[in-house]
Amino acid sequence: MSILDVLHRSPQDNGPSILVVGTLAFDSIETPFGSADRILGGTGLYISLAASYFTRNIRLVSVVGYDFPLAELARLNDRGIRTEGVQIKSSQKSFFWKGRYHLDMNTRETLVTELNALADFDPIIPESYQDSQFLMLGNLTPSVQISVIRRLRQRPRLIVMDTMNYWMRHTPQELREALRLVDVLVINDEEAREFSGEYSLIKAARKVLDSGPRYLVIKKGEHGALLFYDNNVFFAPALPLEEVFDPTGAGDTFAGGFTGYLAKTQDISFDNMKRAVIYGSAMASFCVAKFGAEQLMQLTQEDIEERVNDFVDLVQFDISLVD
Amino acid sequence: MSILDVLHRSPQDNGPSILVVGTLAFDSIETPFGSADRILGGTGLYISLAASYFTRNIRLVSVVGYDFPLAELARLNDRGIRTEGVQIKSSQKSFFWKGRYHLDMNTRETLVTELNALADFDPIIPESYQDSQFLMLGNLTPSVQISVIRRLRQRPRLIVMDTMNYWMRHTPQELREALRLVDVLVINDEEAREFSGEYSLIKAARKVLDSGPRYLVIKKGEHGALLFYDNNVFFAPALPLEEVFDPTGAGDTFAGGFTGYLAKTQDISFDNMKRAVIYGSAMASFCVAKFGAEQLMQLTQEDIEERVNDFVDLVQFDISLVD
Repeated sequence: MSILDVLHRSPQDNGPSILVVGTLAFDSIETPFGSADRILGGTGLYISLAASYFTRNIRLVSVVGYDFPLAELARLNDRGIRTEGVQIKSSQKSFFWKGRYHLDMNTRETLVTELNALADFDPIIPESYQDSQFLMLGNLTPSVQISVIRRLRQRPRLIVMDTMNYWMRHTPQELREALRLVDVLVINDEEAREFSGEYSLIKAARKVLDSGPRYLVIKKGEHGALLFYDNNVFFAPALPLEEVFDPTGAGDTFAGGFTGYLAKTQDISFDNMKRAVIYGSAMASFCVAKFGAEQLMQLTQEDIEERVNDFVDLVQFDISLVD
Repeated sequence: MSILDVLHRSPQDNGPSILVVGTLAFDSIETPFGSADRILGGTGLYISLAASYFTRNIRLVSVVGYDFPLAELARLNDRGIRTEGVQIKSSQKSFFWKGRYHLDMNTRETLVTELNALADFDPIIPESYQDSQFLMLGNLTPSVQISVIRRLRQRPRLIVMDTMNYWMRHTPQELREALRLVDVLVINDEEAREFSGEYSLIKAARKVLDSGPRYLVIKKGEHGALLFYDNNVFFAPALPLEEVFDPTGAGDTFAGGFTGYLAKTQDISFDNMKRAVIYGSAMASFCVAKFGAEQLMQLTQEDIEERVNDFVDLVQFDISLVD
């Protein structure tokens, strides 16, 4: 055990447990509205923060380098996010990503990716994480995702997974193996199309569901998200926003809110997943309003409930069929 | 009165009246899934057909050339669409449009536009149309749209208007004048952005509403439609479809279903407009399933109600806020 490990504080478990696996990183972001240099980011950060509004019992597995500010881990601890599973590589820097968005915030350009500490990441599951009820696997190489599942002695009640095009192209076998192990896959429309070779999202969804997961969420950025289960489809819009400032982390924030809501309510039925999609969308709508994860540090429960009500107002209608 | 005029049959008025102004045309269409040559089309056709499922009292104002099959006008008459206002130019051909869609059905490329009979279209409002309760102005040069409104002795209860980028660029003054005369504007997202100079649809909507119409519908193709009124927004998704075969006319079909539903229910409140957006979206979802307007000739009321129920299933969720 390194001396740094003792710095990880273990907040008292408070609520249903979610094991989150994802990156902690520095991001540099350029958008048409401004830029931010080396701000805190990573899938693990966004997922954990979003989920922490639903339960204060998040267990984060990640890796950082010597340059990662420990005060930030303490800030996570304060939000009920345990960090014993965050490895600190004393000879390497933290994962760094630099990207640029254009006016159409749905697509982005990666300018720099430095894996650094993430390069040979071997996820260690602390004993204190073993009983986690929910597992949210952020986008990582599928072999790491598989390792995490294999290293849990007891299968979590629900396993949610994110992935990306890169793994579809470079490690398709491992990705297919991972898909057979999870319950819910959360990807975007472009990824669903690439994975399935189908342009129609209905057809794409069928192929994804045939490959393993029972549930599929297809995120469409500003165009909302679709939830597929069996032959059922549910659609949640994204809230039309006056300003989309920085979409970085929005997908992870969605996934964190989605999983957090399911954990909090302890209900993994299709009907409750619909609500989870709405909560995930609500959390994502906060994320895009400022650079980085700052907004996700300062929400109140009232903010979230108000935002969910905005979603209700946005889509609710009362149909009595014309005769 | 030309000898051809007597061929227009006047079906008995049956239901609330809608005056529809739009083109009748021949369309040649190429999509990744096939092509269709010189099939019947035009904004007036799609709007009228869609609206005819809600009331059998449609009054069409349009213009065709000598090549337009009169049997087609009779088919419209059989659906409760009056055609006394369809001028027949015996020395000209009908409006012709040829276009191509790519895999992304949201954008299209115009290959040929031959205005022909449409070139100097001066809309004539038959006396029998004067008392129309609703007016749906299909996309046409704004001066024609203005003429129609001016030539009605009595203002319809609701005026709905479509337009396109071309008029924003080429006749901006006339377009602005037209906007001041209508109640509801129906445009797509690209048009809303171009008209307003705002990328955010929320900001774009505010500028459009400031320019005249009280209601604004922004169509987003496969991504659904937004309805704006005052500070309220309502969103209706498009139904995720297995096959989108040919999007030609989908926007007009939406407008026809939207206006038809409002006319049938005789209720132009914001709440009822939400329902009208759902009915418009349902009608559009039928339109894209086959080439041209064929599908719109053979629907039943049951088809439509079933489709509307699909929309209810797609978006309905039951939120009880977490405490």
